[in-house]
Amino acid sequence: MIPILSIVGKSDSGKTTLLEKVVRELTDRGHRIATVKHDAHSFEIDHEGKDSWRHKRAGSRLTIISSPTKMALVADTDHDHRLDEIRDRYVWGVDLIITEGYKRETHPKIEVYRSELHRDLLCRADENLVAVAGDPSDPPEGIPVFDLNDVRPLCDFIEKRFLNPLKDR
Amino acid sequence: MIPILSIVGKSDSGKTTLLEKVVRELTDRGHRIATVKHDAHSFEIDHEGKDSWRHKRAGSRLTIISSPTKMALVADTDHDHRLDEIRDRYVWGVDLIITEGYKRETHPKIEVYRSELHRDLLCRADENLVAVAGDPSDPPEGIPVFDLNDVRPLCDFIEKRFLNPLKDR
Repeated sequence: MIPILSIVGKSDSGKTTLLEKVVRELTDRGHRIATVKHDAHSFEIDHEGKDSWRHKRAGSRLTIISSPTKMALVADTDHDHRLDEIRDRYVWGVDLIITEGYKRETHPKIEVYRSELHRDLLCRADENLVAVAGDPSDPPEGIPVFDLNDVRPLCDFIEKRFLNPLKDR
Repeated sequence: MIPILSIVGKSDSGKTTLLEKVVRELTDRGHRIATVKHDAHSFEIDHEGKDSWRHKRAGSRLTIISSPTKMALVADTDHDHRLDEIRDRYVWGVDLIITEGYKRETHPKIEVYRSELHRDLLCRADENLVAVAGDPSDPPEGIPVFDLNDVRPLCDFIEKRFLNPLKDR
């Protein structure tokens, strides 16, 4: 089963930026990563006037564009999917799923924390917290803290904990 | 297994327009439709600068945005997916898949044909041709021809041939 790791933190803490750096570093190391972002609202992804946009507007529940190098899908849903549903239904061919957000789920979490923005850690009492990236003055006991500006030690930790050695694949 | 029906035709024959009309009419009749479009080239679906775009650019193989009403996925692929692969991996919760293009596959096909544009039918000799929408002067024997301007008889045909009666669902 593909492991799921969530990058959580308060708004504007820098979740997307950290996720980008981690994905880039792990990809450079040869791992295949999928990412999931939660959006509380409706969102626009397709471009007005394109054929796929026209399909969707005509009433299609699920529209797919498929090319030799890329695949895209836009679907109506009747509920907010849990991460394990997303994994089981949509994700394949990767070694790790990294999510932005999903703090209420019970998958392992890395919290982004910058002392200039926050009073306390969002996930201090969350038993799924596995690491903090940032500068908490009083991190929870036993939880490692990583530098936000050098993502390599954090990626070493992620590799060790969530990824099989590349030679075993 | 979800049936697949392809709308095929030469370039600019009006495939997208017919697909839109058919999807709208079948949706109005209570059917749940998915659509698939083939794109021979790379395509852009996401918007530059958005978080999901940033995830993908960082190296993510597969990026998902999930909201309570909509789900979107963009994935790298290493080959051109066949329609049955697409159906098995990505499509659920619909009654019929209508594709735009995919004339080389062996699923049932409706050809869009307009005499002012074409010399002959693209799929005249294709045993998967089930209907023509347009005005061929010499349609293949036994193949029904439907008016491009009134999609209702064509949808009656599609319903009868590919969709279970709504009461049975």
